[in-house]
Amino acid sequence: MDKVAAYWFREYVTPHFIQQFSISDIVYNGESDFQSIQVLDTPGFGRCLVLDGKIQCSESDEFVYHEALVHPVMIAHPQPETVFIAGGGEGATLREVLAHRTVKRAVMVDLDKKVVDICREHLPFLSDGAFEDSRTELLHVDAMKYLDETQEKFDVVIIDLTEPLEEGPAYLLYTREFYQGLRDKLTVGGLVAVQSGSTSMVIAHGFTAVVKTLSTAFPVVAPYLAEVPAFGGTWGFCIAAQEAAPGELSPEDVDRRISGRVTRPLRFYDGMTHRGIFALPKYLRDSLAGEERVITKDSPLFTY
Amino acid sequence: MDKVAAYWFREYVTPHFIQQFSISDIVYNGESDFQSIQVLDTPGFGRCLVLDGKIQCSESDEFVYHEALVHPVMIAHPQPETVFIAGGGEGATLREVLAHRTVKRAVMVDLDKKVVDICREHLPFLSDGAFEDSRTELLHVDAMKYLDETQEKFDVVIIDLTEPLEEGPAYLLYTREFYQGLRDKLTVGGLVAVQSGSTSMVIAHGFTAVVKTLSTAFPVVAPYLAEVPAFGGTWGFCIAAQEAAPGELSPEDVDRRISGRVTRPLRFYDGMTHRGIFALPKYLRDSLAGEERVITKDSPLFTY
Amino acid sequence: MDKVAAYWFREYVTPHFIQQFSISDIVYNGESDFQSIQVLDTPGFGRCLVLDGKIQCSESDEFVYHEALVHPVMIAHPQPETVFIAGGGEGATLREVLAHRTVKRAVMVDLDKKVVDICREHLPFLSDGAFEDSRTELLHVDAMKYLDETQEKFDVVIIDLTEPLEEGPAYLLYTREFYQGLRDKLTVGGLVAVQSGSTSMVIAHGFTAVVKTLSTAFPVVAPYLAEVPAFGGTWGFCIAAQEAAPGELSPEDVDRRISGRVTRPLRFYDGMTHRGIFALPKYLRDSLAGEERVITKDSPLFTY
Amino acid sequence: MDKVAAYWFREYVTPHFIQQFSISDIVYNGESDFQSIQVLDTPGFGRCLVLDGKIQCSESDEFVYHEALVHPVMIAHPQPETVFIAGGGEGATLREVLAHRTVKRAVMVDLDKKVVDICREHLPFLSDGAFEDSRTELLHVDAMKYLDETQEKFDVVIIDLTEPLEEGPAYLLYTREFYQGLRDKLTVGGLVAVQSGSTSMVIAHGFTAVVKTLSTAFPVVAPYLAEVPAFGGTWGFCIAAQEAAPGELSPEDVDRRISGRVTRPLRFYDGMTHRGIFALPKYLRDSLAGEERVITKDSPLFTY
Repeated sequence: MDKVAAYWFREYVTPHFIQQFSISDIVYNGESDFQSIQVLDTPGFGRCLVLDGKIQCSESDEFVYHEALVHPVMIAHPQPETVFIAGGGEGATLREVLAHRTVKRAVMVDLDKKVVDICREHLPFLSDGAFEDSRTELLHVDAMKYLDETQEKFDVVIIDLTEPLEEGPAYLLYTREFYQGLRDKLTVGGLVAVQSGSTSMVIAHGFTAVVKTLSTAFPVVAPYLAEVPAFGGTWGFCIAAQEAAPGELSPEDVDRRISGRVTRPLRFYDGMTHRGIFALPKYLRDSLAGEERVITKDSPLFTY
Repeated sequence: MDKVAAYWFREYVTPHFIQQFSISDIVYNGESDFQSIQVLDTPGFGRCLVLDGKIQCSESDEFVYHEALVHPVMIAHPQPETVFIAGGGEGATLREVLAHRTVKRAVMVDLDKKVVDICREHLPFLSDGAFEDSRTELLHVDAMKYLDETQEKFDVVIIDLTEPLEEGPAYLLYTREFYQGLRDKLTVGGLVAVQSGSTSMVIAHGFTAVVKTLSTAFPVVAPYLAEVPAFGGTWGFCIAAQEAAPGELSPEDVDRRISGRVTRPLRFYDGMTHRGIFALPKYLRDSLAGEERVITKDSPLFTY
Repeated sequence: MDKVAAYWFREYVTPHFIQQFSISDIVYNGESDFQSIQVLDTPGFGRCLVLDGKIQCSESDEFVYHEALVHPVMIAHPQPETVFIAGGGEGATLREVLAHRTVKRAVMVDLDKKVVDICREHLPFLSDGAFEDSRTELLHVDAMKYLDETQEKFDVVIIDLTEPLEEGPAYLLYTREFYQGLRDKLTVGGLVAVQSGSTSMVIAHGFTAVVKTLSTAFPVVAPYLAEVPAFGGTWGFCIAAQEAAPGELSPEDVDRRISGRVTRPLRFYDGMTHRGIFALPKYLRDSLAGEERVITKDSPLFTY
Repeated sequence: MDKVAAYWFREYVTPHFIQQFSISDIVYNGESDFQSIQVLDTPGFGRCLVLDGKIQCSESDEFVYHEALVHPVMIAHPQPETVFIAGGGEGATLREVLAHRTVKRAVMVDLDKKVVDICREHLPFLSDGAFEDSRTELLHVDAMKYLDETQEKFDVVIIDLTEPLEEGPAYLLYTREFYQGLRDKLTVGGLVAVQSGSTSMVIAHGFTAVVKTLSTAFPVVAPYLAEVPAFGGTWGFCIAAQEAAPGELSPEDVDRRISGRVTRPLRFYDGMTHRGIFALPKYLRDSLAGEERVITKDSPLFTY
């Protein structure tokens, strides 16, 4: 037995389903004012970030998550020049945004400076210089408050927050009230992308509720999926728009826009990927169609 | 802590990644001549079958796996009347095959009679009467030997085997030699579907090697994916053909054929699902393009 | 890996220490009005009883626990004829009591009839006929209330309760008030034995507090130990007396009394064992000497 | 769930029994020429050393193990001046030996220099300056070979080796041949102490075989026990002598010798502890009496 891995990070995906990652080192173990933070080295997934007991990204598959969150909305927009990121402390969402040569200004607001600092020190490949880019403005304030107070409008808003835990900082940014407020922060033709939680059947109710809630604030909402193994399966995202659905771009359109705008090769996203991720399986479309829950301040969503 | 689940089934997905299912009962625990067998009740996934320590299907998501394995190949065929199933002991692959009104004869060959018996007793929803269907012929012999000796040809062959473990019964049915032998067992225009293992990035090398190997025996191989949460993520499948790729059916074609042929509602598969599952993400297409391994009798594939 | 045990019962000994028992069957899984109940088959420890997530006894080492709880107090008494047992639902404490030919009457009061019934059905070796013994009176009422109301006095009282969990039925029977009330229920020279929890250093504060609390109600309290592997280490017990300490019996005295009174061979307890179990290691004597906590109704003890 | 410990060291005590320690840091993770080595910080047991997947000592209870191994044999000897330690890489056995003012020379031979170096760096409280003591001679060679070749005789020999794993360095030092060779290395009245493995009933066969084997080489063998929670229960030790059994010292004798010879306070061992640890429970005495296995080079013992 001595050859079997002996050190494990254990994550409850649900109260009845656990995933465990073998670990070779706990590189950092501490906490910020808002959450507990660990950086792990794992033989299976490389270096990983864990916040409040939930794995946030792994070296081996963070490219899927971050490309899936950023590029569909950026490519769907005809000319994204100004981008707002709520959350995204690892810096990888910003990294992907800045890969678009159209971008002139990217404002990233993440409450937790410590997460950003820990990631820059221990997971530098995540931001890969993005924080030093002259187009970047980085702020450590409450994203909701910042948006309330700013007069600025953005071409693209990306919501990259941790799951809405009961004690966590993020749950108010999953409500109808927040999404409604977002509409005024968009330029004409502006788009919003939202990471929307797991769509593994057993726990997809968070995803379907987020989609339903967004659709009370925006006329067009396009949900899509990407498999992120370190998250235990398929993950959901949405693009919210005032007008046409982004899923309607043809694979060729997507490939053409990528080659015209994106300054380095992508690993996950291209025209064919685009076609696949917006074509949800039937049972999930049925769940979305049947979802009636709207998340509000008074009736917030908490995930496990 | 007394409210936290205390009874767990632990499965090593890889030596460095474990998934654990909380269990409320071990309904059956025994072994056959070929493998260990358990039937579990789980709060998260319902009743489950475990063979040689690997979860084979769960009540909550077996419909995804079995619809994904069966319907794409059946729908891609213009008129599937005779079907051969290698493996499929649970009976659910047969169940889905028989849902096609075109089918006149279905031969299922699974070496392990005990698995079939245990499933009929403890997981009757899997076969749901399929073994009593007059079109069914069920045999408990070696599938490879049976195919070698039969003169019969089939419109569709479905390979629904457990993972190729080193000590297990299935590994020879993942080789080039077996796939080459299959060609003679097909009618003109006949098609083959193969369950091909996990495509979670960290362990997708089995999947890409199966696709590569099939492509040495068949001119057209169409890989596709479906997320099966109980399997720890996205699962790979292939359709092998002598001619046109099945992925080229339009969503409308698929929906039309389903409504014309399938005798009960499907939950996973339809035209839109079809479009999504054949559109693989870029990194997986790149892995497939770079794969050079051909699985042979002398150089077999063993999964963890 | 398929040869490694896959089914486990996991028990939190403390929030930072877990023990896991491989299981081959969940023989019973249910709950009573008072607690959750499971009966397990385990390859390592045989058949086991679990209440509220805590292992209560295992086939392989229950003889240690029950002999250690019962025989020292019975042997210390010159002529124990009437015995009261609080708790002891498995029936094994009663079984050991009845092995003393001096006993004329044994009253066992366990609140939870369901535990008694489950044990009689699934773990019959625990009671081994004790409930059918004509000397036995079995009642399913609150032990505290029963003792309050009865006029009867007993030669020996044995407190065999589950750990005092916050929501559990037992915590009031670990208080000074209860121990004080016990004094009136004893005949002249009567003795009390109490199972007193783990004495593994890391969690021994329960044990030392029970000893301290007993000593506020009785002039003589003799703590002693026995290793019960299924409980994760060494377990503590106490005998409370009005007069001489039971630990002062010589090994020869103990052996002589056993052979004169006990009707079948013992496996754990004899004169030499007696000498060993009352000779606590220095650090534990130091902890006991330094303990100041007295458990009361208003300041109860709860274990993890 | 986010408050529950998420990082765990898992140790198989047997194939069917696991203990898990929550960890807050992996301070060191590497391997030597002989074994894998980790140093852990654990909330439950403090800093710990792990060799080949087995916990070797914890900050919280190493004093029990090391006092139990060293002081009984040292106190049993009338005037121990020269001491040989086989193994003992942590330095704590040496530390306890040097606490005896009678000692003039202590030779410690541990094959694995890396373990010694790692412990000095990361667990300095274990040796606590012992390696700098002028009475110490430290050698990193094979202990068996060293004893074969040396002409020196010792008053006390202490065998402090890891468990005899199949691939490990230690198994030959658990054989009759080795014990027989030891006799010539003792001065007149010389004594040997041997750490002898777990005595938890379920895995005590190693312990009883070691005692039996020692008794083929020495006329007097006195087994004894101490509970070491981090080792999962009670641990066995032996003293082998040419003459009188050490267990026959009275508590008063022990206390007198300790106060005359030992230069700092002990936490585990004193006269009363001495009485307790040599008084084994009946079932273990019965197992020892029934043990017939003699461990030899040709029929070695391997623990799990």
